[in-house]
Amino acid sequence: MAKNQQNTLEKIVSLSKRRGFIFQSSEIYSGLNGCWDYGPLGVELLRNVKEAWWKAMTYRDDVEGLDASILMHPRVWEASGHVENFTDPMVDCKQCKSRYRLDVLFESYNEKRQKKVADAYRDLLAETGGDAEAFTALPREQQIETAGGALVDDAAVLNAMNAKELLVCPNCGGSGSFTVPRKFNLMFKTFIGPVEDSNAVVYLRPETAQGIFVNFANVAQATRQKVPFGIAQIGKAFRNEINTKNFLFRTREFEQMEMQFFVKPGTDDDWYEQWHATRLQWFIDHGMNPEKLRMHPHAPDKLAHYAKAAVDIEYEFPFGWGEIEGIHNRTNFDLSRHMEYSGKSLEYFDQEAGEKFVPFVIETSAGASRSLMAFLVDAFEEQELEKETRTVLHFHPKLAPFKAAILPLVNRDGMDDIAMKLYRDLQRDFKVFYDDSGSVGRRYRRQDEVGTPYCVTVDSQTLEDQTVTIRDRDSMEQVRISMDALRAWLFDKLAV
Amino acid sequence: MAKNQQNTLEKIVSLSKRRGFIFQSSEIYSGLNGCWDYGPLGVELLRNVKEAWWKAMTYRDDVEGLDASILMHPRVWEASGHVENFTDPMVDCKQCKSRYRLDVLFESYNEKRQKKVADAYRDLLAETGGDAEAFTALPREQQIETAGGALVDDAAVLNAMNAKELLVCPNCGGSGSFTVPRKFNLMFKTFIGPVEDSNAVVYLRPETAQGIFVNFANVAQATRQKVPFGIAQIGKAFRNEINTKNFLFRTREFEQMEMQFFVKPGTDDDWYEQWHATRLQWFIDHGMNPEKLRMHPHAPDKLAHYAKAAVDIEYEFPFGWGEIEGIHNRTNFDLSRHMEYSGKSLEYFDQEAGEKFVPFVIETSAGASRSLMAFLVDAFEEQELEKETRTVLHFHPKLAPFKAAILPLVNRDGMDDIAMKLYRDLQRDFKVFYDDSGSVGRRYRRQDEVGTPYCVTVDSQTLEDQTVTIRDRDSMEQVRISMDALRAWLFDKLAV
Repeated sequence: MAKNQQNTLEKIVSLSKRRGFIFQSSEIYSGLNGCWDYGPLGVELLRNVKEAWWKAMTYRDDVEGLDASILMHPRVWEASGHVENFTDPMVDCKQCKSRYRLDVLFESYNEKRQKKVADAYRDLLAETGGDAEAFTALPREQQIETAGGALVDDAAVLNAMNAKELLVCPNCGGSGSFTVPRKFNLMFKTFIGPVEDSNAVVYLRPETAQGIFVNFANVAQATRQKVPFGIAQIGKAFRNEINTKNFLFRTREFEQMEMQFFVKPGTDDDWYEQWHATRLQWFIDHGMNPEKLRMHPHAPDKLAHYAKAAVDIEYEFPFGWGEIEGIHNRTNFDLSRHMEYSGKSLEYFDQEAGEKFVPFVIETSAGASRSLMAFLVDAFEEQELEKETRTVLHFHPKLAPFKAAILPLVNRDGMDDIAMKLYRDLQRDFKVFYDDSGSVGRRYRRQDEVGTPYCVTVDSQTLEDQTVTIRDRDSMEQVRISMDALRAWLFDKLAV
Repeated sequence: MAKNQQNTLEKIVSLSKRRGFIFQSSEIYSGLNGCWDYGPLGVELLRNVKEAWWKAMTYRDDVEGLDASILMHPRVWEASGHVENFTDPMVDCKQCKSRYRLDVLFESYNEKRQKKVADAYRDLLAETGGDAEAFTALPREQQIETAGGALVDDAAVLNAMNAKELLVCPNCGGSGSFTVPRKFNLMFKTFIGPVEDSNAVVYLRPETAQGIFVNFANVAQATRQKVPFGIAQIGKAFRNEINTKNFLFRTREFEQMEMQFFVKPGTDDDWYEQWHATRLQWFIDHGMNPEKLRMHPHAPDKLAHYAKAAVDIEYEFPFGWGEIEGIHNRTNFDLSRHMEYSGKSLEYFDQEAGEKFVPFVIETSAGASRSLMAFLVDAFEEQELEKETRTVLHFHPKLAPFKAAILPLVNRDGMDDIAMKLYRDLQRDFKVFYDDSGSVGRRYRRQDEVGTPYCVTVDSQTLEDQTVTIRDRDSMEQVRISMDALRAWLFDKLAV
């Protein structure tokens, strides 16, 4: 990424720690790679993001909520295909036993080595009747990806390259001595009960979706919902990523906000269109810059094994475009597989039409952690004012950790008492902050930096006519209103 | 437990499934022992319990929120003492390799066998100069517990009893052939990164508290809080319990609501008193019957290794009194241990007094899942009315899944249109339900059974004067108010 973009991310990470949004997990023990903790402001921001999603998705007639457990029966992950397919190719150095993800090993090569790998693969293609010419026409990056991907299925390629001593272990420097690539499953596994054997293996869920599928019949029966209807869930998921990166973007522990919408086959294309429009609009409604958002449809040959169609909502982070939500037409794959593996019927009987079918599923799968990061990055601005640089987080008021700050102009003449009383009154309904230290200008800046949308100042005029000033974070303009009207004014501003 | 009490719990479990509060986890795969899923109504109840706790605990000046990750650095659990002490004694049958928790093995014995075990232990005490007489005076249950507990530290006892062929394996029937008891750790372990060796072991946190301790310095610095202040957190924790039981009471995956309050040494006793009063009152304020609540202080010789004082808030469940929250004076044990293990200072500098100290910690540790179960049990009633039995859940309005149900008396004359418009208006702020099917009496019963506090009926008078009736769930009395005033009326009722 470009240097100034890199700087932006560094500034956000630094602000996040300094003001208490995000801390490195277990930091006093040098951290745990791929895990982050939400500090006092971060947890409020996260709660607000999740609350906004929950209300938008479940305060409607056709979507029900759910909170399934993280530990599930291991057969769930056989049915879903995760035991078989949720893997990365890994190789071990035969000399020092270090283990590497294959594509990372290739990526780490310098240009010269990459050329040699590509040449070796091209030669092999030519020898074995493959399309060496098409391969040569590819950009180098894709050549490497192709050569690397092919290795997983073709030990001979690796052996050929080992023979040419092209692969060097980044740890011991030994060359040409890697094992044949093996599949490494990205699910965290643990053992339930006292005996650690294969019968006791359970997994930390790598996605929340399956908790919804296995509860489809229970929810339909308890709520008497009729297809089309959805089930929404917010919860933690875990993936044993080999490479974590980009702050909150790729982590081992993360939170998802997923909704599975069950529809009659044949109506799935329409619902797919509807949901991806609805979900894109949600980010915009909550203040995200539309120019930083785009829809990225997956090419038909790049679809996951369960999907008929898929589109990512991407945000332009400082490191480039990254997925913050995926909308997928999962067909009837999941319910059919769970019927097969559990022996239980998950068919739906359509009373009006008098017919049975296995519903198709339109999935909207957002990362809560990634969405939070996108909202944070999107909100961040360094404004050059006349005499200073103002750091400000332009959060939508609904997402801002503090809704308002109450500032007595000075700590005397009863202004502080009035301000404290106002603060206590508001605190029953809102997360608010009280600050009486330093100049008002400094106090404004402290609130700007954490995204508090409104600063309410109690001054000498308040003593006379019971009015306060409200200073807007973004425009920096002030209005004067009666103290009595403040609560209703805030409620009004906080409605989406 | 008594038979009618047993029936009560069965009825609650059955209602929970039928109406969508609680489902067995992975039910279509015969369930996963010790894990439960929250259905559409359960997730709302759980959200409301957590939200009420969060507001009570963090919408105040002296407590900050936090959300630390479930996976933490493994040294955390060495420092906390969990790696060493969080264990149950286990034995293996040497013949068939089955594994048992020792006390459970003893419990499963019939009276005759229990007598023999106790006799064998008494003989051993007599032989080795122990107090055989005091042991004989104990009730049989305590004898078994004592004999079992002693085994962990004294292989000779087990060998002596094995020799007498008193222990029979419940699986293979083999006798007198158990291994020496070993400590089995209750933490779930997994491996981070691609290599499954001892260097890669991490644990699923067995409590949320440690996430707070390791973040103490970060939070203090970011928020500029001064001792005394607290850090609060809601989150999942996991314990590989050998025996799960009593519905949501003892599960392997559960949610905690914990707050650690950091105080100056010497002020800890006062804060301990304050917090246990505050926390007891919270349950009462949210509608729990005070007669079903009691404080159970731990005897000094029964305290955990880190505690100076401890008291449980217990609720009288159908199966007896059970802890729903613990308040502990943890002294400076945790911060001192993390200082020792991390090499980082967690001392606090008191600017006013000009002195440094390691803060003492008063902990309030509530189970979100257990609290929810207590609220559910406490709310449940079967009322004998003149002609029928009315099942009702008397939830506090703040905790009830639906705040109101909107019922058009009949689906014509525009009543349904008015009711639907009212429903849509309220839905922007509240979780509400619309029901237009069946007699109004039946519709009331359906709402009573899920604890909806207010049923709002649109009838012919509404067409004339824009008023609706509000029927109270508990008193079943009705009041008539203007439709325009309904929203404010509800907001008022939902304030604690």
